[in-house]
Amino acid sequence: MSLEEKTISTKEIFNGRIVSLRIDEVSLPDGNKSYREIVEHPGAVGVVAIDDENCIWMVKQFRKPVEKEMLEIPAGKLDAGEDTVECAKRELEEETGLTANNWDEILYYYTTPGFSSEILYLYMATELTQGEYNPDKDEFLEVLKIPLEEAYSAIFEGKITDGKSIIGIQYAYKKLERG
Amino acid sequence: MSLEEKTISTKEIFNGRIVSLRIDEVSLPDGNKSYREIVEHPGAVGVVAIDDENCIWMVKQFRKPVEKEMLEIPAGKLDAGEDTVECAKRELEEETGLTANNWDEILYYYTTPGFSSEILYLYMATELTQGEYNPDKDEFLEVLKIPLEEAYSAIFEGKITDGKSIIGIQYAYKKLERG
Repeated sequence: MSLEEKTISTKEIFNGRIVSLRIDEVSLPDGNKSYREIVEHPGAVGVVAIDDENCIWMVKQFRKPVEKEMLEIPAGKLDAGEDTVECAKRELEEETGLTANNWDEILYYYTTPGFSSEILYLYMATELTQGEYNPDKDEFLEVLKIPLEEAYSAIFEGKITDGKSIIGIQYAYKKLERG
Repeated sequence: MSLEEKTISTKEIFNGRIVSLRIDEVSLPDGNKSYREIVEHPGAVGVVAIDDENCIWMVKQFRKPVEKEMLEIPAGKLDAGEDTVECAKRELEEETGLTANNWDEILYYYTTPGFSSEILYLYMATELTQGEYNPDKDEFLEVLKIPLEEAYSAIFEGKITDGKSIIGIQYAYKKLERG
């Protein structure tokens, strides 16, 4: 059985700076109709930056949608047509001042496939060099480095609660701390 | 320095069945103003259901926002005021027909704190019993069980690309396969 939902009609609700919202009327596999609320997002990258002492570099920032400061790996939205690894390099440098000699693709994933199109590409950056740091003018960040083992524990203590960061830390901890 | 962004005004754009959208005008830490596009979501649960043969139970469904069939752990939205573990039990049974004797909280996380308020509670369910299965009338699912080791590899092969599933599988693989 095909599970596909075919689009009958689309209604644009909002076209924003970061997200857009539309409602699709769809034909379900059994022929009935339903509606899907869909948040369109340009996609993003996240960077698991690990230094020679097995510390992970993270940024603390206030996240208005959840009304709290969060500790996250460096990350950012893709510009239109931008190569994902170039975006990863740009965001790491903008947010932390770091550059890296070594870049590895970890995986890509959909953050919330139930309501949003966002795809997120995760990279690991190693052999780091510290330079200047220049966050966007409406981004206010604190940069921290944390031992990887401590970051791993923080996931289960509710201290690191950002999805992309959790995936990246789980990956790095298994790869680097546990072999 | 406080990183907090204080709300100056809020404009509701859309109030939907699953998500709502609003724009907050905010005061930044340096006193300047900016806008935040915020998707409100009621929150959700995901269930890592592992049977006695170390297989993880998953569901395949079509996800309109990404226009593809995806393999995901059983999951669903919280009803208003619903207890998270009760929601986890309900969703597991609705989507797969399974009940579980043993429920453990793994962690909670924010799926996309940059633009959405969604929080997701992840549970592990073990000591499973198979019963009837009754998906919602506009949900069309295929239920599968997959050896945990195979699911873990599938993350890095681009075959499992759902965020909550990746977090849950990494957790279960470390806990059950690697000790």
